[in-house]
Amino acid sequence: MLGNDYPEQVCSVARALEVIGERWTLLIIRDAFLGVETFDELVDSLGITRTVLARRLAHLVEHGVLDRRRYHQRPDRHSYHLTPKGQELFGVIVVLTDWGDRHYPHPPGPPRLIRHHGCGGSVSAQLTCTDCYQRMERGDIEAVPGPGLLAAPGDRPDDRR
Amino acid sequence: MLGNDYPEQVCSVARALEVIGERWTLLIIRDAFLGVETFDELVDSLGITRTVLARRLAHLVEHGVLDRRRYHQRPDRHSYHLTPKGQELFGVIVVLTDWGDRHYPHPPGPPRLIRHHGCGGSVSAQLTCTDCYQRMERGDIEAVPGPGLLAAPGDRPDDRR
Repeated sequence: MLGNDYPEQVCSVARALEVIGERWTLLIIRDAFLGVETFDELVDSLGITRTVLARRLAHLVEHGVLDRRRYHQRPDRHSYHLTPKGQELFGVIVVLTDWGDRHYPHPPGPPRLIRHHGCGGSVSAQLTCTDCYQRMERGDIEAVPGPGLLAAPGDRPDDRR
Repeated sequence: MLGNDYPEQVCSVARALEVIGERWTLLIIRDAFLGVETFDELVDSLGITRTVLARRLAHLVEHGVLDRRRYHQRPDRHSYHLTPKGQELFGVIVVLTDWGDRHYPHPPGPPRLIRHHGCGGSVSAQLTCTDCYQRMERGDIEAVPGPGLLAAPGDRPDDRR
């Protein structure tokens, strides 16, 4: 069931945050990206309670971000893997890693390097125009109301973010 | 002061989330991106209490994500603007908008379009290698322990995520 964290918001960012905006969730997605896959490994990696982890994982499985697989029977043990829908969130992890590295550097250097394993170069998330393929700077981008906002109930569409 | 939401994590994603991971914060950044700038406009847009908004804004100003400007005296009124450090987070907003649009579509269409105002094309965040400029797919990317992780205290570096 879709959460209702931001029920008043006619906004795709808000919808996305209802799925992945809870405390710990983006770190679970980071771990899945890093290959931390079993429930017990996730508990160790995150240092959170089993109850909170189970709740977060169930939410992500329900929304098709993670796929749950049984890798052991009696007792049942499960591992969790990013679905294609979950993999589309890599960009978020890459931007946050980059931003954290740049603004909150660890004195010995970045804790983790995200690389192109073909050539060993660093991977970054670049804002790109899908029509002209130019790389976008802040001044090149505009956000305009789309059909979903213009059709939303309310007094004035411009008031709705 | 840096928050301590994820004190055990030697990870730039965790550091970034201590600054922008609180409930509402990414929607405040989205609003700043859309040009919603004054305290009162933000209250209207988000529908949150003035106390919560003031706390979130203070945290973002303290971390240099937003810049606070007085635009009216007696009574003092302030507006909030993304700093260059804050603008580096656009990629997160773009990925989440994209992802929300794709997986939780509004029947009439996307609420908001993020466009290149030069040519009118859509803007997306593409994972790109900064060395060979190739566009990355999931299989092209690897995350490896960096100097900050290898230097972290703990039994085995591989245990730290």
